[in-house]
Amino acid sequence: MLNIDMIQAARERIASRIHRTPVVTSRQFNEAAGKEVFFKCENLQRAGAFKIRGATNKILSLTDEEKRRGIVAFSSGNHAQAVALAGREAGVRALIAMPTDAPQAKVAATREYGAEVVFYDRQKQDREAFALDLAEREGLVMVPPYDDEYILAGQGTCGLELLEDVPDLDCVLAPCSGGGLFAGVATAARAANPSIRCYPVEPADGDDTLQSLRKGERVTIPPPATIADGLRVQIPGRLTFPLTQKLADDVLTVSDDEIIETLRFLLFRMKLLVETSGATAAAAVMSGKLPTDVKRVGVILSGGNIDPGLLVKLL
Amino acid sequence: MLNIDMIQAARERIASRIHRTPVVTSRQFNEAAGKEVFFKCENLQRAGAFKIRGATNKILSLTDEEKRRGIVAFSSGNHAQAVALAGREAGVRALIAMPTDAPQAKVAATREYGAEVVFYDRQKQDREAFALDLAEREGLVMVPPYDDEYILAGQGTCGLELLEDVPDLDCVLAPCSGGGLFAGVATAARAANPSIRCYPVEPADGDDTLQSLRKGERVTIPPPATIADGLRVQIPGRLTFPLTQKLADDVLTVSDDEIIETLRFLLFRMKLLVETSGATAAAAVMSGKLPTDVKRVGVILSGGNIDPGLLVKLL
Repeated sequence: MLNIDMIQAARERIASRIHRTPVVTSRQFNEAAGKEVFFKCENLQRAGAFKIRGATNKILSLTDEEKRRGIVAFSSGNHAQAVALAGREAGVRALIAMPTDAPQAKVAATREYGAEVVFYDRQKQDREAFALDLAEREGLVMVPPYDDEYILAGQGTCGLELLEDVPDLDCVLAPCSGGGLFAGVATAARAANPSIRCYPVEPADGDDTLQSLRKGERVTIPPPATIADGLRVQIPGRLTFPLTQKLADDVLTVSDDEIIETLRFLLFRMKLLVETSGATAAAAVMSGKLPTDVKRVGVILSGGNIDPGLLVKLL
Repeated sequence: MLNIDMIQAARERIASRIHRTPVVTSRQFNEAAGKEVFFKCENLQRAGAFKIRGATNKILSLTDEEKRRGIVAFSSGNHAQAVALAGREAGVRALIAMPTDAPQAKVAATREYGAEVVFYDRQKQDREAFALDLAEREGLVMVPPYDDEYILAGQGTCGLELLEDVPDLDCVLAPCSGGGLFAGVATAARAANPSIRCYPVEPADGDDTLQSLRKGERVTIPPPATIADGLRVQIPGRLTFPLTQKLADDVLTVSDDEIIETLRFLLFRMKLLVETSGATAAAAVMSGKLPTDVKRVGVILSGGNIDPGLLVKLL
């Protein structure tokens, strides 16, 4: 099971290949939210999201034989770009399975990073089965988006850095899709401060983790329509779910309107471009979802790869 | 004349009231520009621009009697917001003279910060005379946008921080309007590294500093139409011009198209919202205006306060 030593090892492995992203504050946000908030800017990370951390850690941990075979990943976006970039830098062939309705900017960026893109139909095909089939046919190594301890350890480095910069936080919030970012960040945060509260944040319309925690087992929900296109998974990960059960103090949910309002605030007040999925944790703070006794809050702004067309529509 | 001791003193005075803004890098930008570029993110500064540095330094240096009388400033935008915010925090009444065509976002922000706004016609009235008249009638202390050593020393703290974070730069670039940011940054940079090259950057359509340096005296140009609304001054400052003569290795100019292209790159690739004026120094690097022997480049991203309507138009 994921532990702090694996996250420390990941940090050693990837440090020279990623940005140590800044932590920023905004008195305007603090006034609006009634909290003291510290934003970990993974939207300023390489390839525009935290995903490069896990992908780099995984690829650098492959054997030489595995590297020669090449890698495959399935992703609605940021994981794809991360695997493509980390693969190119490690000299490893990368194939990416993406849904036909993935944002154009993400498809283009994935190709720019040198990966081959293969499309599947999100409504009809199971992406994991599709990618596993690809892996088998072409002899590739799967780089999963979250259900892999090297991936989780890589994402955890983001929490490690945040707690180093701001040790005395009452809680930390991370957007939650498959749960990899949350599991990594919460593991690192608890190791630094055993009493810190940890909250995954989901779109209200894509609350598979909330439903699963309530039921005590992994629940599958219908394909969510949320504007947070990076958080449209239908079921928590196999590896991540027990970690979420162990680490989450509660699951917070936000509406599309709350996400959009926060995205605009982050852009026009704080000058940070954050994608819809990346703004969910901030949206939970802004819309008052935290307990009142929580004062000092760490928020992961997890990514900034928004489609220009969608951005114009939201503004 | 402005010197490094005044900038050091300013830093002591204002440190607790401003952000130490991050310096970020982007391999994508480096590849596109063929340089190694370090961006000082003053768009992430309080009130959205470097201007809070000078305004805070000036206001904290007033006598108690001056503070009781109140302050007045003229500005097309960022200086106004900075004076309004610094004034409110120091408990000083602030009156701001703004052009009738100032971006709505900047007028609204200035009022939100608690200042009173008085409008003048940019085509018909001289803003400095208008503000001086206001100051006299109401007994207020003028907080000029650049022709004041406390203001210049405050802006210089931005260069001080950049050179502390990245000491081995070949050159530093700053957007140039009245010349206050450039004079401050170049003074700090030269003190840290006597051989560093310093470049003010102007819109091609608002090149009063370039023309003035060529002629050896301050030249007045017609009201510029450049999209860089913060750089529409018609003549370099009285105090700043001799500093620019002493410190500028050359003046670089950029077109509106080069500014817009760079603004889009900064937003979509680097996830930073930078206003048109604030992107000019980056635009000069991106569009190849630097000598080829310059490798390590410091760029001030001076502000991020763009009108939402203008942003949507540019996207």
